[in-house]
Amino acid sequence: MTTQQLIKQIKLKKSFLCIGLDVDLTKIPHHLLELEDPIFEFNKAIIDATHDLCVSYKPNTAFYEAYGLKGWQSLQKTINYINEKYPEIFTIADAKRGDIGNTSTMYAKAFFEDLNFDSVTVAPYMGKDSVEPFLAFKDKHTILLALTSNEGAFDFQTKISKGTQGESELNGGKELYKVVLETSKTWENSENLMYVVGATKAEYFREIRKIVPNSFLLVPGVGAQGGSLSEVCKFGMNENVGLLINSSRGIIYASNDVDFADEAREEALKMQLEMATILKNTNFL
Amino acid sequence: MTTQQLIKQIKLKKSFLCIGLDVDLTKIPHHLLELEDPIFEFNKAIIDATHDLCVSYKPNTAFYEAYGLKGWQSLQKTINYINEKYPEIFTIADAKRGDIGNTSTMYAKAFFEDLNFDSVTVAPYMGKDSVEPFLAFKDKHTILLALTSNEGAFDFQTKISKGTQGESELNGGKELYKVVLETSKTWENSENLMYVVGATKAEYFREIRKIVPNSFLLVPGVGAQGGSLSEVCKFGMNENVGLLINSSRGIIYASNDVDFADEAREEALKMQLEMATILKNTNFL
Repeated sequence: MTTQQLIKQIKLKKSFLCIGLDVDLTKIPHHLLELEDPIFEFNKAIIDATHDLCVSYKPNTAFYEAYGLKGWQSLQKTINYINEKYPEIFTIADAKRGDIGNTSTMYAKAFFEDLNFDSVTVAPYMGKDSVEPFLAFKDKHTILLALTSNEGAFDFQTKISKGTQGESELNGGKELYKVVLETSKTWENSENLMYVVGATKAEYFREIRKIVPNSFLLVPGVGAQGGSLSEVCKFGMNENVGLLINSSRGIIYASNDVDFADEAREEALKMQLEMATILKNTNFL
Repeated sequence: MTTQQLIKQIKLKKSFLCIGLDVDLTKIPHHLLELEDPIFEFNKAIIDATHDLCVSYKPNTAFYEAYGLKGWQSLQKTINYINEKYPEIFTIADAKRGDIGNTSTMYAKAFFEDLNFDSVTVAPYMGKDSVEPFLAFKDKHTILLALTSNEGAFDFQTKISKGTQGESELNGGKELYKVVLETSKTWENSENLMYVVGATKAEYFREIRKIVPNSFLLVPGVGAQGGSLSEVCKFGMNENVGLLINSSRGIIYASNDVDFADEAREEALKMQLEMATILKNTNFL
C-alpha cells in the first residue's frame, strides 16, 4: 500500500486508528478456547466488528511466537484474512526486527513477501545496513523505533549523543532518538520510513516534527499506557495527519464475555469519533 | 544450562566454537531440496558431523521466518533434535528481540519455554523493562547486543553519550555501547546477561573487558566478515574463556555438494584445533 492510499483511507473513514492485535490466551473469552484456533477466531471477530473504524491492524509477533507453530499459523491466518477481506487496511507486523544486512533481507522477505504485511517495525541499534534491506521493498514501509512509549526509553534513547570521536559535530549534543531520526533520513529509500513515537512522551512531538515533518508516526501508548490523544495530535499532526494512533488492550479486551466484539467496537467507535472531531477541527476533512 | 556447565563443556571439548545455523535454501546442496524438510535435514547433517567440535549452535530466526510456517517448523525440529540428542550443547536463538515489558515476556516464553533454547539475543534500544523479562528466567541467558560486527555499528553504538540533560555525569563521555554495558549491569538478574561483541572490532575488547570482566561474550564476525580469532582471544578472553566464537557461512557452506557435512566438519575442526592451541597456550587446559 502506498502512503497516498493510506491517507485516502484516513479521509474516508475519518479515522487514524490502528488496533493492536496482541492476543493473550489468558485474556480472551473462555468460550473461544474450545475452538480449534482461538487466536484467529478472536482476531476475526475483532476485525469484523471494527474494520470500518480503523485504518490499520497491528499484530505484535511476540504474542504469536509465544504459542509456537500454532501461534505462527494464527498470525498467518490473521494477515491472510485481512488482506483478502479488507485489502484497504494498512497492516503492520510489530516485530521490532533488525540484523546484519543479509539477515535483515530474510526478515524483510518473511514479513513483506511470505506474510505480505504492508509494514514492519524495526529496531535501529545496528544502524544503516540493518535497516536498508527493509527499505528496498517498493510500496512497503519500515517503521523505525525512535522514541518508545515505555519507561526504558529513558535508558538510552534520550541520552545526549556528542557524535563519534574525531567526527564532525554534525550530530553533536542531541538525544540519541534525534540522531536516529536524522541519520535515518540519509539512508537509501528513506521515503519508505515511518517512525514509532510513544504517546506517553507527547511533549517530544514538537521537536520530532522539526526533524521528520512529513513522515507518518506510529504512536503506541494512548490509553492503557496513559498517553493523551489530543496532546499527541496537537504537537504531532501534519497536513496529511501523519499519525497512526495504536490502541491494543483498551479495545480488544474491553470485555472478555461473549459480547467482546461488540464491546471492542464500542471502544473503537469512541476513539474514531474523537478522531473525526480532531480531523474536522484541524480542517483536514 | 548454567554458565558452569558451559565452561565445563569448553574444557571437555577444547573448543569455544558456536556454529551459526543460518540456512538459506539457495545455498544448500541441491539434492536436499527434494526432501520434505530440506532445512532440517541440512541442519541435522551439519549437527551430527560437528557436535563434538563445538559447544553451541545458533540458528538465526530470520532464516526460518523467511520460509513462513514451514520455516518455523524447521526451527522447532532443529532445536528439539539438539536438545534430545545433544543436551550438552548450549543453544542460542539469534532473534534480536526486545519490546515493552509484557511483550518481552511473551518473547521470553517463545524462546525459553516453547522452543526451550538456553539463550536468546536481545536488542537494548528499548532499555531496562524490555530486557528484564528475559532475565527473570532461571538458568536461561540473555545475550544483549553491545557492539555488533557490521558497518552500521558505527552509526549509533560508537556515538559518544553525555548522559541525559540534568542527570549526573555518571555515563558522561562514553560510547553508547559502553553505556549499554554499564547500565545493563544494574538490571535485576543481570548475572544472566551475556553480550554480543563483533570480532571485526577486536581492539575494543580490552575496553569492554574493563566493564564486563566476567561475562561471556558471543562473538560473530570471525571468518566471512574478516575478524581474527587470535586478536579476539588476546583481548577478549577471561579466566573462564568467556568467549563463544561464532562461525556460520564459513562452516555450513564449506561445500554445497553431497560431501557438505564432511567439509563442514573439516572447517569446524580447523577452528577447534586453533582454539585448543589457544586454550593450551593460555593455561586454561
